[in-house]
Amino acid sequence: MLRVAIVGSTGYTGFELTRLLVGHPEVEISILTSRQYAGDPISEVFPSLRGRIESRLRTPSVEEVAEEADFIFIAVPHKTAMEVVPGFHQRGRRVIDLSADFRFRDPHVYEKHYQPHTCPELLEDAVYGLPELYRDRIKGAQIVGNPGCYPIGALLPLLPLIKREVIKHGGIIIDSKSGVSGAGRELSLDTHFCEVNEGVKAYKVLEHRHCPEIEQELSGLAGHHVSVIFTPHLIPMSRGILTTIYCDLAQEEGTETVLKWVEDFYREEPFVRVCPLGKFPNTLDVRGSNFCDIGLKVDHQGGKLIAISAIDNLMRGASGQAIQNMNIMCAFPEKMGLEVPNLYP
Amino acid sequence: MLRVAIVGSTGYTGFELTRLLVGHPEVEISILTSRQYAGDPISEVFPSLRGRIESRLRTPSVEEVAEEADFIFIAVPHKTAMEVVPGFHQRGRRVIDLSADFRFRDPHVYEKHYQPHTCPELLEDAVYGLPELYRDRIKGAQIVGNPGCYPIGALLPLLPLIKREVIKHGGIIIDSKSGVSGAGRELSLDTHFCEVNEGVKAYKVLEHRHCPEIEQELSGLAGHHVSVIFTPHLIPMSRGILTTIYCDLAQEEGTETVLKWVEDFYREEPFVRVCPLGKFPNTLDVRGSNFCDIGLKVDHQGGKLIAISAIDNLMRGASGQAIQNMNIMCAFPEKMGLEVPNLYP
Amino acid sequence: MLRVAIVGSTGYTGFELTRLLVGHPEVEISILTSRQYAGDPISEVFPSLRGRIESRLRTPSVEEVAEEADFIFIAVPHKTAMEVVPGFHQRGRRVIDLSADFRFRDPHVYEKHYQPHTCPELLEDAVYGLPELYRDRIKGAQIVGNPGCYPIGALLPLLPLIKREVIKHGGIIIDSKSGVSGAGRELSLDTHFCEVNEGVKAYKVLEHRHCPEIEQELSGLAGHHVSVIFTPHLIPMSRGILTTIYCDLAQEEGTETVLKWVEDFYREEPFVRVCPLGKFPNTLDVRGSNFCDIGLKVDHQGGKLIAISAIDNLMRGASGQAIQNMNIMCAFPEKMGLEVPNLYP
Amino acid sequence: MLRVAIVGSTGYTGFELTRLLVGHPEVEISILTSRQYAGDPISEVFPSLRGRIESRLRTPSVEEVAEEADFIFIAVPHKTAMEVVPGFHQRGRRVIDLSADFRFRDPHVYEKHYQPHTCPELLEDAVYGLPELYRDRIKGAQIVGNPGCYPIGALLPLLPLIKREVIKHGGIIIDSKSGVSGAGRELSLDTHFCEVNEGVKAYKVLEHRHCPEIEQELSGLAGHHVSVIFTPHLIPMSRGILTTIYCDLAQEEGTETVLKWVEDFYREEPFVRVCPLGKFPNTLDVRGSNFCDIGLKVDHQGGKLIAISAIDNLMRGASGQAIQNMNIMCAFPEKMGLEVPNLYP
Repeated sequence: MLRVAIVGSTGYTGFELTRLLVGHPEVEISILTSRQYAGDPISEVFPSLRGRIESRLRTPSVEEVAEEADFIFIAVPHKTAMEVVPGFHQRGRRVIDLSADFRFRDPHVYEKHYQPHTCPELLEDAVYGLPELYRDRIKGAQIVGNPGCYPIGALLPLLPLIKREVIKHGGIIIDSKSGVSGAGRELSLDTHFCEVNEGVKAYKVLEHRHCPEIEQELSGLAGHHVSVIFTPHLIPMSRGILTTIYCDLAQEEGTETVLKWVEDFYREEPFVRVCPLGKFPNTLDVRGSNFCDIGLKVDHQGGKLIAISAIDNLMRGASGQAIQNMNIMCAFPEKMGLEVPNLYP
Repeated sequence: MLRVAIVGSTGYTGFELTRLLVGHPEVEISILTSRQYAGDPISEVFPSLRGRIESRLRTPSVEEVAEEADFIFIAVPHKTAMEVVPGFHQRGRRVIDLSADFRFRDPHVYEKHYQPHTCPELLEDAVYGLPELYRDRIKGAQIVGNPGCYPIGALLPLLPLIKREVIKHGGIIIDSKSGVSGAGRELSLDTHFCEVNEGVKAYKVLEHRHCPEIEQELSGLAGHHVSVIFTPHLIPMSRGILTTIYCDLAQEEGTETVLKWVEDFYREEPFVRVCPLGKFPNTLDVRGSNFCDIGLKVDHQGGKLIAISAIDNLMRGASGQAIQNMNIMCAFPEKMGLEVPNLYP
Repeated sequence: MLRVAIVGSTGYTGFELTRLLVGHPEVEISILTSRQYAGDPISEVFPSLRGRIESRLRTPSVEEVAEEADFIFIAVPHKTAMEVVPGFHQRGRRVIDLSADFRFRDPHVYEKHYQPHTCPELLEDAVYGLPELYRDRIKGAQIVGNPGCYPIGALLPLLPLIKREVIKHGGIIIDSKSGVSGAGRELSLDTHFCEVNEGVKAYKVLEHRHCPEIEQELSGLAGHHVSVIFTPHLIPMSRGILTTIYCDLAQEEGTETVLKWVEDFYREEPFVRVCPLGKFPNTLDVRGSNFCDIGLKVDHQGGKLIAISAIDNLMRGASGQAIQNMNIMCAFPEKMGLEVPNLYP
Repeated sequence: MLRVAIVGSTGYTGFELTRLLVGHPEVEISILTSRQYAGDPISEVFPSLRGRIESRLRTPSVEEVAEEADFIFIAVPHKTAMEVVPGFHQRGRRVIDLSADFRFRDPHVYEKHYQPHTCPELLEDAVYGLPELYRDRIKGAQIVGNPGCYPIGALLPLLPLIKREVIKHGGIIIDSKSGVSGAGRELSLDTHFCEVNEGVKAYKVLEHRHCPEIEQELSGLAGHHVSVIFTPHLIPMSRGILTTIYCDLAQEEGTETVLKWVEDFYREEPFVRVCPLGKFPNTLDVRGSNFCDIGLKVDHQGGKLIAISAIDNLMRGASGQAIQNMNIMCAFPEKMGLEVPNLYP
């Protein structure tokens, strides 16, 4: 059994890791940390866990965590993450960080959008945790920077389109619609029920930090810098991100052809589903699952391609993705612990 | 592997059975029936199932179903259920009926609230599928009448209170608040998004058919006829029933004492959780799970006991309960296939 | 034009007062106070007000408020309210307080459930702002204690039943279901979108402070102390309270008879609507209006009467009620400024 | 008093017209028609109207309507609309049609996307009811084709940008997010609560009929054919449309400059509000009002302009817009009956 620690287990992604790992046949949860609720049983913080796990929340030192756990998930906010990761790394513990701290290869990009990086030397070895792109490197990684929720929803449809040179690299527009859990469990007016319910809005227009993350990966694929326009929207639901992508075809192609290429590209992938012709994803169909559903259609008149993806932001967009990465890193079956039934309706 | 048929698999309870049985280690889904969608893959009707099950929906005869399946779930509306159950029964197939047709021991009670019963002779052998009450009889049952969603939420808190003679049998008031999936997938103004969203209402006041079902079981426990007042309410959410019960203490007791009795009563039960002193259930904490959470408090002034339960109406209130019953009938581990992680938030 | 101040205008009830008073033909809003947002235009805090009112939020002294306003609404939390009301009162300003500070006639009851009262001498003259009970006294009142949201929903159905001696005074059970705006605009986990959405729960079971308020008024009507059992529930919607009341008939009566009595009782009331036989209220039908809708039904078997009311907690349950009271105090037409169209769906 | 008929008053737009016109000082509602509910009081179909209007629903002939009403709103589906409009027109009655039947100047465009037009000769005189574009023509119009909900949200931000030649005419992308009431009150799985709640999806991708309507108006402004990409999305709320528009600047401009141009353009408009620099619209801020809120931002790197609008689809997107048009046609003050307070939260 792999002894696992979850550092920061009382946010939504920490909870989601706990919820899933409780049922993972190869994992034993050995440490759940929380500053805010230290000493409480996690099932008191999250009564939905009662009868499934009874551990108490702790605030152990880096040493203690490294002692008691073989594998560590970091589910604390960025900045706090890079404060603890080096300690685990030095002690030979493998780490998946769900914050932004190890997603960027170039520390300058990170520092432009976040803050000074306190261990830039580790970035070189950290692997961006998108299996469809980096499965082989993830296998041997010591540190995985788990992708942001929006980037996953944006990258999965674009990956085969860029790789196969179906689309132009300029003018890509990404319009995302997210549920509220993406904003975390901290309190703010933006997540107050009455301020969210029955409303939609765009936020951080042209300044969301997931944009450079998307651009990093697209640029890597394209072999030169790719800029995108990215607009996140908040909608009144708890889970899910729908991403609508507008791009220009490199040359004329029909919907069926492009659809087939995308299907072929993802044929062996356990957690990507391509919608049949004329069908498009709905976040309700991926809720509680690790699937990314993708649909697309070509506009003949304008040469535009519209690609749409749906993910559960806490599953594929965070903790489910992290567990898939752990499975890869530990040579467990990739779907282990993730074949939970979607919750619909 | 138990070959299972789901008759009526495109309503919400049929879907829920499918969703769960796909992952049940001892079950093979051999037939999914649907009149409306016959010929379609179930994953087209419910895209959330894509990649998990690819069967086509069929309209087989009773003979064919009995031929290809060892065990049959009936998830069609009442009246239609009793039309098909005798055929399966004669052919030696064990049946769990999720409609109301086999819940009543006395056909007159059924007929007063529903319609003429076309196979009253089977009622005698049918077992009411509440394991906490009838586990032993369920083991050997040929026909299980799976309880209604409201009755489960009402009965589980009342059971230990009546058994232990904590409360009086008169004046019990049951005030339930249900999500919309309880009304099924059929179209009606009552389930139109805009008519439900941002509103609460009581419905079928003093005339809901789950009331005689609750009374049947309480009367059985009490040894004489027990009447209750039951008011269902519809609230703007998809899943969940919260039931608030008001009753009179038979003699003065403190909250802690009563709580302890209830805890003791359910100590061995895999799917009942009793909330600690001062805590009360929230449907969000049981969403997607088979748990029934129960909390209670005594009002010293008035001698009243308030007991509150939360269930997921499609899980404990229907399909999860049915699978628990199947496990019991087939001597599978009782929690098999039901240890799915709750979905929160 | 009546110059009106709203003390505490950036909570939901303060906003609601502003929203409505902007369109009141006899009112000029002269001061909007806010500590948190002092200096900002109110339309920046609430963009929905842009183009309707452009005032800046201020933190004036009691003197300044009394100088610039003839009439004062207090929409700050209890305790803060009683700190400022005496100053306005001494300066001859009429006040409607939306907090609990002036709702109780007996300071001991207030102090038992809230905190020490700092101006108990004013309680004697303060009038409980329920026009259906105290219209005449409200006319001449200097201080009106505007009722709590739950008490209004509970009292309006009970009033005619108690007055006409239709029901017994013991064993009244009040089960209320409220939207989230009743909890105000302050941040707390209880109002975080993801913690509320798709869940229902009871809270403050047997210890909510609106219970003694309900009891005060029922006791006054009955001529002796009346106890009730009151359970508030939180449901996932922004506005509205549905209250389901269970009580015992004093003598046998049919639904039609009782319904007619209630209709007669409220015939002249501008803001009470009694549902026809067989119909029950829905909070969606009163959203954005000052109406209280009431429906009821008798259970012949048990001698129980079920009465149900629906209000918009920010309108009839707070600010709409307060404006109705102002209209009465100032001899304006009682419906003035309140004939706004309900928002459905 | 203008005697007004609402033909088709039991859909959401018909209800909304009724709700608003009840309070319009210059209007008397003389006829409300409904096939489905003929004979019933409208307050029985919509209990929220009780106490505000007591008329019975009727199925009068065209003659009767024309006899009893001076002005007619058509709120029936397209096709049915063009069956009745000519009769009213011949009898000299002015008509506002909320369906698509009189929105297109070119019958071929209409027929391509809808069906054969049965009175194409009337299209020439019909005026597209967007006051910001056609106020003068609306004044004298006999028939107004009230714009679609999506087109209003798309056109209002684009109007000043095209008029002032700020943006290129090619490559405009319109990504809209709509509440469910836009789909009307008819029953369908797409509006079933459980199918909508907690999900987002795109629908009618590249084939929604509001696209040619948008193109007609943009082309008219541009002086040549303009194509757009338009994707509607359904989100779990009752009212509101947020429209995010991506277009290319014709030449480099800063956000402040463009914002100022748009502000200037709309300075005199009663129902357009331009958000200050750095602020963007939220549908919650326009709910229940006739406002269209607009915000925008320039991306310097890519030369893109992002413009965002929010409307209430039943108000500015349908019935509120229709009443504004009636006010213009009848020389009433343009805001009359529309200065209702927004409903927030």
